Amino acid sequence: MGLGEFGLIERYFNASGDDASPRRPDVALGIGDDAALLAVPDGMQLVAALDTLVEGRHFPSGTPPASTGHRALAVNLSDLAAMGAAPAWFLLSLTLPAADEAFLEPFAAGLHRLARQHGVALVGGDTTAGPLTVAVQALGLVEPGTALRRSGGRAGDLLFVSGTPGDAAAGLRIAMDVLPGGSPAQRRALLDRFQYPEPRVALGRALRGIASACIDVSDGLAADALKLATASGCGARIESAQLPLSPALRAVADGATAHELALNGGDDYELCFTVPPGNEPRLRATLEDVKCAVTCIGRLEPRAGLRLFASGEETAFTPRGYDHFP
Amino acid sequence: MGLGEFGLIERYFNASGDDASPRRPDVALGIGDDAALLAVPDGMQLVAALDTLVEGRHFPSGTPPASTGHRALAVNLSDLAAMGAAPAWFLLSLTLPAADEAFLEPFAAGLHRLARQHGVALVGGDTTAGPLTVAVQALGLVEPGTALRRSGGRAGDLLFVSGTPGDAAAGLRIAMDVLPGGSPAQRRALLDRFQYPEPRVALGRALRGIASACIDVSDGLAADALKLATASGCGARIESAQLPLSPALRAVADGATAHELALNGGDDYELCFTVPPGNEPRLRATLEDVKCAVTCIGRLEPRAGLRLFASGEETAFTPRGYDHFP
Repeated sequence: MGLGEFGLIERYFNASGDDASPRRPDVALGIGDDAALLAVPDGMQLVAALDTLVEGRHFPSGTPPASTGHRALAVNLSDLAAMGAAPAWFLLSLTLPAADEAFLEPFAAGLHRLARQHGVALVGGDTTAGPLTVAVQALGLVEPGTALRRSGGRAGDLLFVSGTPGDAAAGLRIAMDVLPGGSPAQRRALLDRFQYPEPRVALGRALRGIASACIDVSDGLAADALKLATASGCGARIESAQLPLSPALRAVADGATAHELALNGGDDYELCFTVPPGNEPRLRATLEDVKCAVTCIGRLEPRAGLRLFASGEETAFTPRGYDHFP
Repeated sequence: MGLGEFGLIERYFNASGDDASPRRPDVALGIGDDAALLAVPDGMQLVAALDTLVEGRHFPSGTPPASTGHRALAVNLSDLAAMGAAPAWFLLSLTLPAADEAFLEPFAAGLHRLARQHGVALVGGDTTAGPLTVAVQALGLVEPGTALRRSGGRAGDLLFVSGTPGDAAAGLRIAMDVLPGGSPAQRRALLDRFQYPEPRVALGRALRGIASACIDVSDGLAADALKLATASGCGARIESAQLPLSPALRAVADGATAHELALNGGDDYELCFTVPPGNEPRLRATLEDVKCAVTCIGRLEPRAGLRLFASGEETAFTPRGYDHFP
């Protein structure tokens, strides 16, 4: 006797308690009706993102279900972070081959754990039989006029990235067993960066009023920096030597591979953002409150396109962002 | 040379003009950034629904792409309608095997046409390669305290349904070539009811302050009426003779089959709602402004469960709502 669709929802997605997603007083009506009813504070703008993970495409078969639950929410919180928004609510559309408790239990645990960390409430969605696909729709709030956009950068603005890009791409290759080397701890750390990325919500919030533009790094640092630069009517210059490569990444990859993964790897869910030079002191001051390293890796320039420099010389380089339909 | 993921989004989902989804002044930032930025009017509650269609599960392979585009939005607008909300914005997560223009062109046309009918703007989402799956997240607005819930019904309230339930289920069977009979026009009409359901948005708006509870009929009239009754702490009684069976349905199905399709068929996207007897005159008056027939099919009763009556006698009946994980 199976749980059934409605039993499944009740057990894994509408429970309350320490293991569940948090309850919020601004949820007038959550799971269990035709739609959720939510109280948006007067004067706040709503921020909405919808991103989907497909098995075999965004994560390999055999990925721990807890990772899939975590990532499905994380990639959407990352989108809100890139806007400087405070996450509030999310909806989950879960398509899965069978109501398999060995999948659902850890999947829900991974999802709810991240939801609790960010105080974001699960308020609706649906479950369907079919190939494993997880769509999450995240809703957040931002003070009008303060949202970070891709288009606000200007030539001369400094280009930053948070964290250590390339780790997640190395982690994916470790998961797929195609990248040897490194200590067990280093391999585990890289794998974690792929399987359990931390959406940079606090950083995004801190960047309001300081950054001129922001994007989250999902397709690859170079491709996403280029998108930001293009939306801002500029180009970008990245200094290869300034890329913040982690010791773990350096342990599993030679220099050229490490740079390639950092620039073209993707799945980082770090923030790439620009700061007018005059705002750099405020950036440094505000970062003391945010536990997230950021590194200046270049700047915006008037000329369109993305250029990579090493030792003062431009080097041949092509951003290879992920394209689902190349 | 393919369109690419970003070219595909630009061509089919971010165009402007007569063929596109409407633009709205309350969209501060739409497609093309990490998330959408939306202005919620002060004092309005936000209503959020997320429903997914999977090929082979919610619609047969070979369904016209325009129907899939239409239905993906329609089922979500139907959820908003069941809350009495005014639809405002939607996001689209489209997973498809290939960037096939022969699919995308009519899919987008069907989606945008319905969006224009309801003045709802496409503000974001994503496209991914994978098995055909369409998730839409619809956002609407409702005046606080006026949203229709499933739980507001009381014993004695009259039970209504809009339209002619069972038509869509017959249409699905016609699409699958398992239901002969009827004239070509009747068969086309039934097929349309499956492929192009009309979300009852105007009716849902009109029911605010009149209906005590409301649900949209997606899983089957009987199963959904039972959900409403249960959420309201009641049971329900349906009079078989009062079911509004369409002439087309009667033409393709004998009496027993027509009743079975009307009660257990599903995919109607009609509204099932309850009205306190004292509100019936107001219901009749307001319906003059809404082009949608409604029929009283029974009432809520104190005893839990759903009972079907024919000629004053209770008849054996089991609601068989759709369960994705039976």
